[in-house]
Amino acid sequence: MSDAIADFYAVIPAGGVGSRLWPLSRAEAPKFLHDLTGSGHSLLRDTWDRLEPLAGHDRIAVVTGRAHRAAVEEQLPGVPDLNVFLESEPRDSTAAIGLAAAVLVRREPDVIIGSFAADHVIRGTRVFEFAVQQAVEVARQGLICTIGIQPTEPAVGFGYIKKGDELVVQGAPEAATVERFVEKPDLDTAKAYFADRSYLWNAGMFISRADVLLAEIQTNAPELHAGLIELAEAWDDRDRRGPAVDRIWPKLQKIAIDYTVAEPAAERGKLAVIPGHFDWDDVGDFASLAKLNSHGRKNELAILGENARVLTDAASGILVSNTDRIVSLIGVQDIVVVDTPDALLVTTSEHAQRVKGVVEALKLTGRGDVL
Amino acid sequence: MSDAIADFYAVIPAGGVGSRLWPLSRAEAPKFLHDLTGSGHSLLRDTWDRLEPLAGHDRIAVVTGRAHRAAVEEQLPGVPDLNVFLESEPRDSTAAIGLAAAVLVRREPDVIIGSFAADHVIRGTRVFEFAVQQAVEVARQGLICTIGIQPTEPAVGFGYIKKGDELVVQGAPEAATVERFVEKPDLDTAKAYFADRSYLWNAGMFISRADVLLAEIQTNAPELHAGLIELAEAWDDRDRRGPAVDRIWPKLQKIAIDYTVAEPAAERGKLAVIPGHFDWDDVGDFASLAKLNSHGRKNELAILGENARVLTDAASGILVSNTDRIVSLIGVQDIVVVDTPDALLVTTSEHAQRVKGVVEALKLTGRGDVL
Repeated sequence: MSDAIADFYAVIPAGGVGSRLWPLSRAEAPKFLHDLTGSGHSLLRDTWDRLEPLAGHDRIAVVTGRAHRAAVEEQLPGVPDLNVFLESEPRDSTAAIGLAAAVLVRREPDVIIGSFAADHVIRGTRVFEFAVQQAVEVARQGLICTIGIQPTEPAVGFGYIKKGDELVVQGAPEAATVERFVEKPDLDTAKAYFADRSYLWNAGMFISRADVLLAEIQTNAPELHAGLIELAEAWDDRDRRGPAVDRIWPKLQKIAIDYTVAEPAAERGKLAVIPGHFDWDDVGDFASLAKLNSHGRKNELAILGENARVLTDAASGILVSNTDRIVSLIGVQDIVVVDTPDALLVTTSEHAQRVKGVVEALKLTGRGDVL
Repeated sequence: MSDAIADFYAVIPAGGVGSRLWPLSRAEAPKFLHDLTGSGHSLLRDTWDRLEPLAGHDRIAVVTGRAHRAAVEEQLPGVPDLNVFLESEPRDSTAAIGLAAAVLVRREPDVIIGSFAADHVIRGTRVFEFAVQQAVEVARQGLICTIGIQPTEPAVGFGYIKKGDELVVQGAPEAATVERFVEKPDLDTAKAYFADRSYLWNAGMFISRADVLLAEIQTNAPELHAGLIELAEAWDDRDRRGPAVDRIWPKLQKIAIDYTVAEPAAERGKLAVIPGHFDWDDVGDFASLAKLNSHGRKNELAILGENARVLTDAASGILVSNTDRIVSLIGVQDIVVVDTPDALLVTTSEHAQRVKGVVEALKLTGRGDVL
């Protein structure tokens, strides 16, 4: 695909620390700023590069914290200033995506926005592009459209989308309604979903006309909507933006877009889904990171870190090396070692989910400096 | 015991890097300079403190490399200058102990020296003292005497001493001849030795009149002996010592005292042994270090490092922390983590012996800077 999709504007909410990836991911250097795939680029940059052919260079907005402004601009040199939306503090995904929608619809009434997290990994560019293209065609019809990932295994770490009846939309041969959303299942349920094929992973991708999205927010969170509209009116006036953010943003309801848009729209038959047949991962923990970087080779050690200096003997799992120290791993299987200047983590893939508990313990013991 | 033993002089050969304890132990900071027991003191200091009641403060000689002079003096403040014997380079144990013997016998013809490695761990001070006291009484008879440790398990990591007939020596009720030395056994052999009770661990402790020891070296390594005598003649003349070391020391044969003294003396029935009923360990690798610091508690994590800042969840084994980093260990059993400013090791007790291979690989790849 070489031409951008008409009316399409990509929105990248770049928030979330990723505390299960501590001590790699930090409040000051969250997950999206890291290269987690060995691509040589941060996840944010990879996300941007994936969207540029679909939206065009000047039609990708990033919504992120003020604290990350410099890092984001370093990752995305040449990004137009008016496409960087800075939050004074995190207010969850409805506020982030809703702000972009409210500002963009004022600039361009027919705009169709597609939101894609800054810290997910996708492989299979053409298949991804075809899914987005279909989703935009669905959105043109006034529906809200998500892209649900066709599962490649019975995962228990993701929420699912139950696909319903097929929809007839020109240019979107795979479009279907969303019957319902389901929470992270247990393993038996996940196996049943996997066999069924009509359950897709919820990857949090939403494509919609901006006005349709805002109407949905207005219905389900009217105060939040009013705040976003007020903020958007001031946004493109340089003198008014800062004071408006300071006044309005901190009071906005913190609520995920799943509850203000996706689930209510699904209940009223207004949510469509396009199955995504590409490899996708939200890299939720180090087990996921290890798998992602193993490239299917078991019993090998994946190494992340440009300058990693490693000596291993019978080691498998993943080493993340963010220092210039010599690291030696001997006779450790499925190990997770994360070596950073001020913190070291040693665990295994099996226990990767427990990392979040350490982060919480560090908060409680006043060690926020390493979070 | 409050009085020093007459004629007794303790000699502490402080050499050997301990490459199985890399990256804790280094060429520049060898094993004997580390606190491996959490005592708050280095092994060298602990060795010194153990010997002081037996020999007296001014009668403990340390033989070490020139490079370690400052570190040794820091560990042993107030040690008389004439008791620090500096090697220009390592020439193995015959040269180290033989030098001390040759110098001390000139100062004091009837001196009885006892050599004790600087980097072993002993628990049970009174029992140790009684063993040394007996060994000195045996040495007075003109025999060379070793102290062999009564095994507490069928260890495969140590050489053994086969105890022979009992000796009748006043003040040494446990004295016996040494029948022979045996190399590190396999497990079945070790089990048989353990059941037999007449096999003792060879801890490299030798107690002898200095003249008897030197005569044994003269018989079995005459050139080395001649070099030591020549060096000793110059030693106590400050102007001659340095040039003599530079001229003679580098040419001395590198050979362990086992081959120049212990084994030949045993063959001629001139070697006696006192069984040591105290806890002893040479702390040969991290498995040994972990065991030593577990104090019998399995499934716990032993931590070495004054300023260790550690967060664990279901971890056992040993952490050596020589940095001020936060270290988090989650769900790792029998783990060995050694965190130093320029090198990190992660292995398990089971694979602790393989650490030496890493050190060799680092040498081959030109990374001597971290050794």
